Amino acid sequence: MRTRIEAALDTTVARATGGAPPRLAEAIRYAVFPGGARVRPHLCLAVAAACGDDRPAVADAACTAIELLHCASLVHDDLPCFDDAAYRRGKASVHCVYGEALALLVGDALIVQAYEALAAAGHAAPERLPALLTILARAAGSPHGLVAGQAWESEPAPDLGTYHRAKTGALFVASTMAGAVAAGRDGVPWRRLGERLGEAYQVADDLLDAVADPGECGKPVLQDAVLSRPNAVTTLGLEGALAKLRALVADAVDGIPDVPGAEPLRQLVMMQAKRLVPKALQTAA
Amino acid sequence: MRTRIEAALDTTVARATGGAPPRLAEAIRYAVFPGGARVRPHLCLAVAAACGDDRPAVADAACTAIELLHCASLVHDDLPCFDDAAYRRGKASVHCVYGEALALLVGDALIVQAYEALAAAGHAAPERLPALLTILARAAGSPHGLVAGQAWESEPAPDLGTYHRAKTGALFVASTMAGAVAAGRDGVPWRRLGERLGEAYQVADDLLDAVADPGECGKPVLQDAVLSRPNAVTTLGLEGALAKLRALVADAVDGIPDVPGAEPLRQLVMMQAKRLVPKALQTAA
Repeated sequence: MRTRIEAALDTTVARATGGAPPRLAEAIRYAVFPGGARVRPHLCLAVAAACGDDRPAVADAACTAIELLHCASLVHDDLPCFDDAAYRRGKASVHCVYGEALALLVGDALIVQAYEALAAAGHAAPERLPALLTILARAAGSPHGLVAGQAWESEPAPDLGTYHRAKTGALFVASTMAGAVAAGRDGVPWRRLGERLGEAYQVADDLLDAVADPGECGKPVLQDAVLSRPNAVTTLGLEGALAKLRALVADAVDGIPDVPGAEPLRQLVMMQAKRLVPKALQTAA
Repeated sequence: MRTRIEAALDTTVARATGGAPPRLAEAIRYAVFPGGARVRPHLCLAVAAACGDDRPAVADAACTAIELLHCASLVHDDLPCFDDAAYRRGKASVHCVYGEALALLVGDALIVQAYEALAAAGHAAPERLPALLTILARAAGSPHGLVAGQAWESEPAPDLGTYHRAKTGALFVASTMAGAVAAGRDGVPWRRLGERLGEAYQVADDLLDAVADPGECGKPVLQDAVLSRPNAVTTLGLEGALAKLRALVADAVDGIPDVPGAEPLRQLVMMQAKRLVPKALQTAA
């Protein structure tokens, strides 16, 4: 599945970079390759597979769009006016290498290219496009998507749940729902799986920020404390956060709709969930 | 038509702002209302009308998407890492009022919302969505759209034609092509009208930058000289630039395809084109 995701990303990114201003093209590639774990596109394709994956080109486009929106948000969040992060995925962040102006444009280009990917594959199943577009716009934009999540950081007293649902949950929900819609199913029953995995991933990220070494997560640690951001470990303690993570994964698995490919998907989610626990805590889990 | 455009924009912006972080919501509205001349959505709806406008909701969505992409590019271009512009449309620019972080997010939110508008109306004619999405992605992104145009400014020796086609022309081409596609026609024959009007608009903007007072254009003048940007008046002189403007408008009108509503569209384009000449030069034109 990794090969399929990278190939789909490469095809879409190539359309954005061929003939583009050379430094922009280079910076776009730098922002997308090599990626991290590609958690969201894997989830999207796994759901599409469980639903029969009858239009693989549409599922490819959906998972590509989701990953490009994720990459765009990383590039913009790392900018000096937000996290001012020097490292991402184990290398210098985009603005540190290419400057703020190009980093801003890379993010913009990736958002647009996410929709271009859907357009390019949409001819194969145009009747699925309105739902796919709506799912992706909700996940990426305002009032409840990535952009809103980032904006809640600028508000004086944001609700923690609202913040996390927008900042992390929205794109996980989009991953499961878009995977189902890309395979011709209703997306709504897949919301719970995405929501719970998004929450689990957020708790895992909080654990990683609290206990991991920088080499394990490829970015600076203890940033939540440094930036006074809310963190589940601060609120619940290490054991409490681990227990919450386990409960969320169990509820996610329970929430998988009864489709022909449900059982392999359950196995996959449980296997992947084990990796969410930082190495330093894996005996405790 | 002005009322129709503002109503369509308001409906789409309301979906992005209801329930959003309050300052983000306020900044999004500030970036879109009150607008400038709304040249691109007018053009889009005028072409849709000439083509029969059989799905007004789709044409509304197309012209809304185009205007939101335009607004997004203005907000991002005004940021300190690009033009560092303090004024836009006769008022303080978004980042001057709301800060860089929110201005960046406003641009991102508007790009996403442009596609959300198409998604919301797409149920009325899903078979028109792939072409509409492709047209808008090409106009907005890389390698040949707004993002690429802005990135060419970061390259050492950009080709002037390539730069202008991306920075200004692409969204005019999208306006005419999307107007036709929204009304169920092939977009390709409408490319020439958009290209020529985009070039004409660029020349008019260069004239305005060279001769107008700040009150007329609502932003600082002589910025091309200050920022060493290419300008048609510098290259061709005032008379040469005016002659080029007239030739481009004539060619645009000649390029209007032979549809039932072609004649009123020709009249409209010629009438609007007269307004492109800065007041100080209107006796000369």
